[in-house]
Parts: sequence; structure tokens; C-alpha cells
Amino acid sequence: MKIPYAKMKSYELKQELSELKTIYNEYVKQNLKLDMSRGKPNSEQLDLSMGMLDTVNSATGTFSESGVDCRNYGILLGIPEARKIMADLLECDPSEVMIGGNSSLNLMFDAVSRAFTLGVYGSDKPWCKEEEIIFLCPSPGYDRHFSICQHFGIKMIPIAMNDDGPNMDDVEYYVNNNPSVKGIWCVPKYSNPTGITYSDEVVRRFANLNPAANDFRIFWDNAYVIHHLYEDKEDKLLNLFSLLKANGKENMLFEFSSTSKISFAGAGISAMCASKANVALIEKQLADQTIGFDKISQLMHVRYFKNADGIKAHMKKHAELLRPKFILVNDILERELRELNIAEWTKPNGGYFISLDVDNCAKRVVHLCANAGVKLTDAGATYPYGLDPYDKNIRIAPSYPTLEELEQATELLCLCVKIATIEYYLTINI
Amino acid sequence: MKIPYAKMKSYELKQELSELKTIYNEYVKQNLKLDMSRGKPNSEQLDLSMGMLDTVNSATGTFSESGVDCRNYGILLGIPEARKIMADLLECDPSEVMIGGNSSLNLMFDAVSRAFTLGVYGSDKPWCKEEEIIFLCPSPGYDRHFSICQHFGIKMIPIAMNDDGPNMDDVEYYVNNNPSVKGIWCVPKYSNPTGITYSDEVVRRFANLNPAANDFRIFWDNAYVIHHLYEDKEDKLLNLFSLLKANGKENMLFEFSSTSKISFAGAGISAMCASKANVALIEKQLADQTIGFDKISQLMHVRYFKNADGIKAHMKKHAELLRPKFILVNDILERELRELNIAEWTKPNGGYFISLDVDNCAKRVVHLCANAGVKLTDAGATYPYGLDPYDKNIRIAPSYPTLEELEQATELLCLCVKIATIEYYLTINI
Repeated sequence: MKIPYAKMKSYELKQELSELKTIYNEYVKQNLKLDMSRGKPNSEQLDLSMGMLDTVNSATGTFSESGVDCRNYGILLGIPEARKIMADLLECDPSEVMIGGNSSLNLMFDAVSRAFTLGVYGSDKPWCKEEEIIFLCPSPGYDRHFSICQHFGIKMIPIAMNDDGPNMDDVEYYVNNNPSVKGIWCVPKYSNPTGITYSDEVVRRFANLNPAANDFRIFWDNAYVIHHLYEDKEDKLLNLFSLLKANGKENMLFEFSSTSKISFAGAGISAMCASKANVALIEKQLADQTIGFDKISQLMHVRYFKNADGIKAHMKKHAELLRPKFILVNDILERELRELNIAEWTKPNGGYFISLDVDNCAKRVVHLCANAGVKLTDAGATYPYGLDPYDKNIRIAPSYPTLEELEQATELLCLCVKIATIEYYLTINI
Repeated sequence: MKIPYAKMKSYELKQELSELKTIYNEYVKQNLKLDMSRGKPNSEQLDLSMGMLDTVNSATGTFSESGVDCRNYGILLGIPEARKIMADLLECDPSEVMIGGNSSLNLMFDAVSRAFTLGVYGSDKPWCKEEEIIFLCPSPGYDRHFSICQHFGIKMIPIAMNDDGPNMDDVEYYVNNNPSVKGIWCVPKYSNPTGITYSDEVVRRFANLNPAANDFRIFWDNAYVIHHLYEDKEDKLLNLFSLLKANGKENMLFEFSSTSKISFAGAGISAMCASKANVALIEKQLADQTIGFDKISQLMHVRYFKNADGIKAHMKKHAELLRPKFILVNDILERELRELNIAEWTKPNGGYFISLDVDNCAKRVVHLCANAGVKLTDAGATYPYGLDPYDKNIRIAPSYPTLEELEQATELLCLCVKIATIEYYLTINI
């Protein structure tokens, strides 16, 4: 049984710190080069989809079952088979889905960009003509969502993330009263980075929003829709689109997903799901930007996975590879930090991240890790403007390193958490 | 020897019109369904690159020679091998090239979009904060360039196109005196639609522009850089980028190209070439939009074509297929229209289009053709706002139909030109 740091005397902490630093210096000498910064699949995961590259070649040809020659121009919204497969994953109609390029981030960026230039369905004017545009940002959240806001000069208001989703009192307050609030970023399932899934109650409250703005949109980034880790513990997310339709509010949703963490991270296909009115306007606006996205890639995906069940079966193989990594990280955090009572972390049922909260020393932890060769996501990155008010959140992405590397990296991380926490405690003279 | 229509008496024209209409009605009965509207490769052309699909599979793997795993995230500007091959085609340094997705149109759109949101290198402020943004539009030109302007509310000023390029007196006048003029659209080689290549003198005058705006850009859409039709008649285009560098004005250029008409129209790779300062800013801005474009497609292109010489050799095969089509169209136009002296057309050495000028009746010609089942690009589309001041220009895209279809379609086209011209002459009581 270890003594919690908060119960240690100052001289004991100093003694402990000195010992920890000796160990830390040994790490520094090792010249590690490990990366836990991004939710990047390991090459073993990528290997799972190698067969996809054998599906389209000079022998199999380039015609889709629906008769599209996937080599030529056109078919702006994607080949019917690809729209069907993504619609089935997102539980909507194929007519409500468009297929994009290799990046759902790019689809989200473009959706905001079009809103700025021309407006969305129902806009009185383009967003660039509004005095101010505000997005709500449940935090900790996905740093690249926040980068899109910064790119377009969108004011971000952080919303607290609870275990069941964003604080809906705050969401309702802002959305229903402030017409400048035009959007909210959500990763509703296996949230980035906390790993939680929005509760039925939270999703229902989203479906019942009464926005002050005519052209408010929920940016529902369903990136991890089928990215379970445990067969016996699969989070369920209510279908927001269906609930919105029942309320006659279906235009309020822009839903996104991709196969980046199903097939190839850099060569998947992306999808956007929206109401028919939204899709019709997007198709019109998009025609100025491109003649159509890469349909060879769409064809590969359709031929390899065949249907949504094929994708779901495939995801079990990913889970096999990812699960031990999540368990390993959790075990080390438990062993090293639990009794010291200096950190909290999540134990998600799916997704790509473990979210670690420390006591006012996240920046220092990330710095110490980097200095010893382990790269983590920048501290603060999970908050708008990079401002984590309590300097506490660290996003751990266990997918990319091997198990051996991960063990080393996580042990170093724990060591750095210990050092940084003691330094902080000593500073505030606990 | 036929009598030119302009020399015919009114009753002769009426007689001729009546006979032509009888023939036209026979065409209508045939229910043709032919498309000469877009510069779309025929499937025989696409077949030339089928081997590309055999270059990346589970046996050959996904690592580039430079060691990039093309399946994973990252490498925002493209794999080194792809940058090299496109740099060699565009005669610049690989560090000055970024590789985009499957569409250079999308690269151009995004370049304008970023300029609007954040500005380009050297901008005092984002273009969306300027009172007015003006682009010069050499016309007839590429309709999709003009659509980008309309999307962003950019005011377009048409510039006359001569046989050696745009009227440079006008270009210099506007660019050098009006700070609202931020861009000009150019297809400098085998121009869309007139097929001409800018003369050395014109390119030199571009290199010597002294823009009133700090952030003026030449949008140099080098779509047909190696798209020759005749081995013994290859147009040469001066290297504008080199000339600009010599003048210390290299930031003025955004050059674009793609393999859409080399490999697959809908699944090629695109490239943007710009100065190092431009590329550095683009990389920074682009990081908010995507983690990287599809590198599997880049790898396929690199492995299949190997190098710029490989692409040039490949283009001779395209020329074999395209040349007879261009010759056929020209022959029919010669046979049917030359002596009547009612039309002019271009006989390009490369590219994808024949540009046909008629006498104040382009809209009527296109309508008559459509009514008989032959689809042409909308009359006026080659001018900003769709406004062809003399209603004269028709863009013919001979690539997509077979030779048999093309013969039928061109004969119908000539018939419609005759009918519409007589109708016009009768209206104005010539």
C-alpha cells in the first residue's frame, strides 16, 4: 500500500522526487522515440485491410454493380453501393448520405467553409456576413474540431463534458437563446478523448433543442460508430437523426463518419449524413468545388467489405489488436498511480483514447515525457484555444506503439506524472 | 463550290432552310443520345492506365521507395516520389509542389477559399474582408474557373483571348492599376476551349506584371501541359515560374495540374506548384483542413508511370486515340461549313477542345442539337456569368464519343449551325 502524495510531508515528497528524478534521468539516456500523440492505427491494424487492395485491378475491372465506371468523372455524391454501406452504418437512408474523399475532417472543414461562403440550408445570409459566429465545444474534445473554428475565426465556448455527454443545461441555454450560436462539435460515441458515449437522455435533449438561429447545426462526428473494444461491452448510442425527424428538426444535423480507422487511416472513404434538403443544397454548392471524389477507392471499400455487417465483423479484428493496449495502459496507470491518488483516467469501451486527468501539471507532464522521447498530444489541445483551465487533461493514444513500446511509454508517463505532481505540490506548499 | 449564305437572297435562304429542316427532323426521329459537353476521356483512354491498378496490392505492399507507409495518416504535401514526378512535368523543384486529391479543380477552389478566409502570402487581410475582389477572365475560357468566382462572389472582368493568349494590354492595365484585381485565370497551354498556347511574348509580359495588389495571383491552370495531339507539332510554353523567379516575383504564381487526363479522370492525382514562401503558408493553412490526401493513389501513379518520361510516353497513346477524333471533327466542319463562310473554328495541337465560333446563334445551335439528342456545353458557358456578348462560342469536346458517334454528332452540329445561321440572317434581313 502506497501513501497518497497529498498525505506526505514536504521532506518526504522531496526525497521521493529525488529518487524519481534519478529514474527519469535513466530514461532520458535511453533516447526513446515513441509517439502516443495521435489516434493513428498501428501497421498490424492496417494489415487487416490489405486484401482491399486486391479487389480492384485490371482483372476485376472498375465497374460498380450499379454500372458506374469508377475511373471517369462524375457521381458527385458517391457510388450508390458506397452510400448504402455508410448509410447502414449510420442507420439512415442512402439518399441522406454523401461520400467524400479520404478524410472526414476535410468534409467537416468544407461544411463549415460552405456555411461561411454561402450559408447552410435555412441561412438568412452566409456566416461570413454575420457579426459573430459561435460554436459550442464540449471539452475536453477533439483538437482538430477546434482548429477548424480557429481557421474561420469562430468564437468557441467550452462546455463541460460529463460521463454521459456535454452539460446539456449549458448547451440548451446557449443554443436556445443566442442566435450567434450556429454549431456544436460532438463526438457522441466513444468520445474523443474521454471515451464516453452520450446517454439516451442527452441525445433526446439534443433532439429537443430549439435553436435561436435558423441555421444552427449539430456537427455530430460519429467517428467511432462501430469502434468497440469489448464484445460484451458495446456502448449504444440513440439515433439522433431519427429523433430529429420525429420532431421535424432533421435539418439541424450534420453527421460525419469515415473508414479511416476501419480500412486505411490515410486512404479510407468519408461520409456525411444529412437531411434531404441539406443534401440537395450541399450537392449544388459542392458542384463548384469538384466534379466528384475518388470512386476507385469507394469501389475498393464496397468490394472488400461488401456491406455493413462485413465492416462490423472486420472491426472485431481491430478490437483484438487494440484491446490489449488499452488494458495494458490501464493496468500500468492502476499499478503506478491509483494508490497515490494523483490522477484519474477513463476506461472506455471503444474508440481510440484514454483521457488522463492530473492535478494542475499536464503541461509539465507532457514536457517531461517529450524530453525523454515520448511524444504526447500537447497539453491543452483538448480545449478550445489550447486553454485547459486546470491544466489537467492529457490524451493518451495507445494504438500506434507496439505493446512493448507502450509499456515503456506508459511507465515513463506515470513517472512524469509523479514528478510533476510532487513539483506542483511543493510549489503550493501543500 | 457552295454559295456563302451571306451572298444568298432571302428566298434562296428560305428554300435552303426548308430543306435543312427536313433533314433535321429525320435526326430528331433517330433519338440520338450523344454527349460532347465535357472534356471527358473515353473508356478506351481509361483502359490505357488499367495496369496502374495492378501496382499496389497485398503482394507489392504500400511502402514508397522513400519509406512512407502510404496507408497511414500524414505527409500533408504528398510523398516525395509523387512531388518529384509532378515537379518534373511542371519543370520546377519538388519542394515547390504539393500533391492534392483527385481533382485540381478542388485544389484551385481550396486555394481561393483559403485566400478568402485567411489571405495568401503577402495579403494585408483575408480577401473576405476586402470591399471587392476582381479576377480577370480571359474569354472564352474554362467554365468551372468562372463557377469558382461566382461561388465566392468574385467580380469577373472578361479579357479578350487572341491567338497568342489574352490581350495583355488589358491584363496589364487592370493588374497594374487596380488593387482589387487579385487574380487571373489562365489555361496557358492548349487553352480551354480555344486550344491555343500562350506565346513567349505573352508569358514574358505575365512575368513582368507589376500588380497594384500585394497579393495578386496568376492562377496558371496547366491542365494540358503534355497533352499533345501530334508528335511533329508540339506547342512549347515558356516556363513562367522561372521567369518570375528571375524577376523576384515568384510569389505571384499558383500553378495547377493533374493526371485526370493522363491516368483516370476521376481518380488521378492533382498538383499545385508555388514558391517556397507560398508552399510554407499553404502547408500551415491546409493542416486545419486535412491530415493528408490519399497516398495509395499517389503510390499507384508513381509505380505505374515511374517518372515524367514515363508519363510523356503514355501520352502518346492518348494522342493516338484522340487525334483521329480531332481530325474527323475538323474534316466535317471543313466540308460542311467552310465554303458557306458561316463559322470559324480552331485546329489545336493538343488539349481537349475545339472552339467553334458562329454568327450570333450559339444558343440556338446548342438548343437545336440538344433537341435532337446531342448534348453540347451550354452556349455562353465559356464566358463569365454565362454571357457571351456575340452569342458565338461553342465548345466541342470530341474525346468521349466513339468515332461513329462523333461523326453523327458533328454532322448534326453542322446542320444546326446552318439552320440557326439562316434563321439569324432572315431575322436581321440580310
